[in-house]
Amino acid sequence: MENYIFGIRPVIEAIKSGADIDKVLIKKDIDSANASELFSLAKEYQIVIQRVPQEKLNRITKKNHQGVVAFLSAITYHRLENLVPELYEDGIVPFIVVLDGITDVRNFGAIARTCECAGVSAIVIPEKGSVSVGADAVKTSAGALLSIPVCRESSMNKAVRFLLDNGYSVISATEKASQLYTMPDYTVPTAIVMGNEETGISESILKISSDLVAIPQFGNIGSLNVSVAAGIMIYEVVNQRMKANMQIL
Amino acid sequence: MENYIFGIRPVIEAIKSGADIDKVLIKKDIDSANASELFSLAKEYQIVIQRVPQEKLNRITKKNHQGVVAFLSAITYHRLENLVPELYEDGIVPFIVVLDGITDVRNFGAIARTCECAGVSAIVIPEKGSVSVGADAVKTSAGALLSIPVCRESSMNKAVRFLLDNGYSVISATEKASQLYTMPDYTVPTAIVMGNEETGISESILKISSDLVAIPQFGNIGSLNVSVAAGIMIYEVVNQRMKANMQIL
Repeated sequence: MENYIFGIRPVIEAIKSGADIDKVLIKKDIDSANASELFSLAKEYQIVIQRVPQEKLNRITKKNHQGVVAFLSAITYHRLENLVPELYEDGIVPFIVVLDGITDVRNFGAIARTCECAGVSAIVIPEKGSVSVGADAVKTSAGALLSIPVCRESSMNKAVRFLLDNGYSVISATEKASQLYTMPDYTVPTAIVMGNEETGISESILKISSDLVAIPQFGNIGSLNVSVAAGIMIYEVVNQRMKANMQIL
Repeated sequence: MENYIFGIRPVIEAIKSGADIDKVLIKKDIDSANASELFSLAKEYQIVIQRVPQEKLNRITKKNHQGVVAFLSAITYHRLENLVPELYEDGIVPFIVVLDGITDVRNFGAIARTCECAGVSAIVIPEKGSVSVGADAVKTSAGALLSIPVCRESSMNKAVRFLLDNGYSVISATEKASQLYTMPDYTVPTAIVMGNEETGISESILKISSDLVAIPQFGNIGSLNVSVAAGIMIYEVVNQRMKANMQIL
């Protein structure tokens, strides 16, 4: 089960105390005078708000929720703008995995586990249109999500631009690419981008990526499971760095 | 739902007609005179028999099962002894993936999907202690299991010995190995072996393998999800063969 808190004041106090909140569900027709402090705080702390029918909240708790339920995150999120300078201080060439809208909890958990095993510096996910990092994701990740930094960004485009501006090579994995995934130089600061299970990486990110690469496909299916594809990409980075005698972790 | 048939005569006729049967459940105290033909047929056709309490059969069907329920396989199994010579005739250097006791249907399906995408020649699984190749496995494999040959062997040891005798290099992936998985030459006829999620590859197979290899681990978890690990191993074979300009499929 996910952890949640409810009621306008308790949710406001939780936000103020710095609790990591996955999202706040607010009933559609809430009295906005009562909730105005909550709305402005949510904006300030960049917390995702979803407007839902009262019945949805009633299904979550039978207690007096006052039209507000906040789901607590199972992990503490990092901020990419803080993390990127810290990574450079570590003295290790950074390696970030960007997940552009992975929706399946098991895929997300498996990718996080691979990242931890491969010494990936951080994972970037979007605030919206992605999995919730709840207890299930942590379990599937074999605990990886409790140790590897996860950044949740309001704009994936901005996040990718920020990485590019900070000297990262951003390599997007897409079946549409003609270049093999083994071709780029991964010994530089690198971010690899993996896309949504159905729709892949968004066009706007593909456009600004340093390189588009494909994992070769020979059968009729023509697409790998995304957690398998991520594993193949991630270990190509590891291989190149090991061959170059670079420190991984 | 899995497909099944029930009753002594119908199951006997199905076996005789060459139906692919996953396993036959027989009630523990069945009258052996009635069932003797069934037992000898099962032995002849190498069909797995499980003795179960009557109640288990009653839960599967309320109809008159006479103490016998046979689960039909969702796929047609191949025989390794027939397949190996056929593969050599194809003119492609064969590449077989041996799964020594994968129990999770989603892992199995994802590995089969990777095999299909990577042009793997065949998958070998054990008769016992492995997943059932039912509708769920076929679905998770994205249909791969309907096209890639699967051999179900009564002895995995014998299967591995048979591959060795036929000139295969048998490479077992185990975290205990000191050699990196990128080191062996995969341009020769190759079988890679992946082990059970918890216990890994059986000692007896590790002992006779041509080489033991490890995927490097840097974090604290120290083990990848088996379908991710299989993907990394399989694409290392693909990479070496592509670099050597070999035909993959």
